[in-house]
Amino acid sequence: MRLAELSERSGVSTATIKYYLREGLLQPGRRVTATQAAYDEAHLRRLRLVRALIQIGKMPVAVAREVIGAAEDTSLDHHLRLGAATRALPQEPAAADDEATVTARRSVDALLEQLGWQGMRDEPAPALGPLVASVAALVRLGYPCDAAHLLPYGRIAAELAVVDLDVVEEQPTPAGQIEAAVALTVLYEPVLLSLRRLAHVQESARRFGGG
Amino acid sequence: MRLAELSERSGVSTATIKYYLREGLLQPGRRVTATQAAYDEAHLRRLRLVRALIQIGKMPVAVAREVIGAAEDTSLDHHLRLGAATRALPQEPAAADDEATVTARRSVDALLEQLGWQGMRDEPAPALGPLVASVAALVRLGYPCDAAHLLPYGRIAAELAVVDLDVVEEQPTPAGQIEAAVALTVLYEPVLLSLRRLAHVQESARRFGGG
Repeated sequence: MRLAELSERSGVSTATIKYYLREGLLQPGRRVTATQAAYDEAHLRRLRLVRALIQIGKMPVAVAREVIGAAEDTSLDHHLRLGAATRALPQEPAAADDEATVTARRSVDALLEQLGWQGMRDEPAPALGPLVASVAALVRLGYPCDAAHLLPYGRIAAELAVVDLDVVEEQPTPAGQIEAAVALTVLYEPVLLSLRRLAHVQESARRFGGG
Repeated sequence: MRLAELSERSGVSTATIKYYLREGLLQPGRRVTATQAAYDEAHLRRLRLVRALIQIGKMPVAVAREVIGAAEDTSLDHHLRLGAATRALPQEPAAADDEATVTARRSVDALLEQLGWQGMRDEPAPALGPLVASVAALVRLGYPCDAAHLLPYGRIAAELAVVDLDVVEEQPTPAGQIEAAVALTVLYEPVLLSLRRLAHVQESARRFGGG
């Protein structure tokens, strides 16, 4: 298909598509004439993924490019590629070394121990920093967040990972699995948070509601 | 305590504290002289909550004011105040009425039916819009997201709500419960998402890892 049709089918303007091509977020089309290129279903799919990462995942263009680049690096084996792609996903930096952060780090260490999650200390996962920072904010507000309070959340996260990876494994090809890992990690975050808020409404009505 | 001490203990600059006072995010101090006011532990606590909503919850100042205002409105009963405060939390608008959105809305309706979550159609919760929008993005990418695929996430969200509301109910006063509902809804979001990513690393190593 031509650029105009790619634009129409994806709902992305031709100017934005050209920008993504220049930035390397979208692979080049097959050159047809000196001024025209042809695009196929793979371009349409990639374009939809890029839009979803940027719009739903709120990812800056540079980060989306890094995530997609990591997912495409065929020099890595499957588990490493999967890891590289999801590691490139945006993460907040860890907080400073104040007292609350020290307490938070101790709680998180005890939590990982209790969950039996191995190897996080030797090669720290990028999600550890934001986890410690968020727990430190709760500590500062005086909310309980020792390992015992965090443990039910850790157990629920482990259940989630099983469901998530089942969906990833439904994809027939390794490349499809890596795309799915990136897309589902990012796109299921708002699904999960919205469902949690809906569940709060239900649970709150059950406990406190008069009706 | 004086403004300078409030600033030192909270780590928030005096200029920012004055801005929060002007914007109504922080209750005024007790007037001591024509130019000085005294602040107490309630001010310190509120200041920490406001900082957490803005920094960890990424909330614009105007939204943080609305959330705190709703939590303080004593004309509402407890369940309503809890609902009003968490309803004021920021939500993405729903997507347009394209084909993917229609499919997504059908999946979400079937999901709510299967979960037995009542009353969502008569008085739609604000989280329904972003849920439909996120599911629509998954539909566009061709990922499975019928009610059967969403159901495990809904069940996990229901488990989460039970854990969350248990923490809320640990707070001894109704005002404390409402503050906790707001703070924990927002501040446990990054905790939960970080734990999910850590759980992915564990589960992926278990399934695909060579070691």
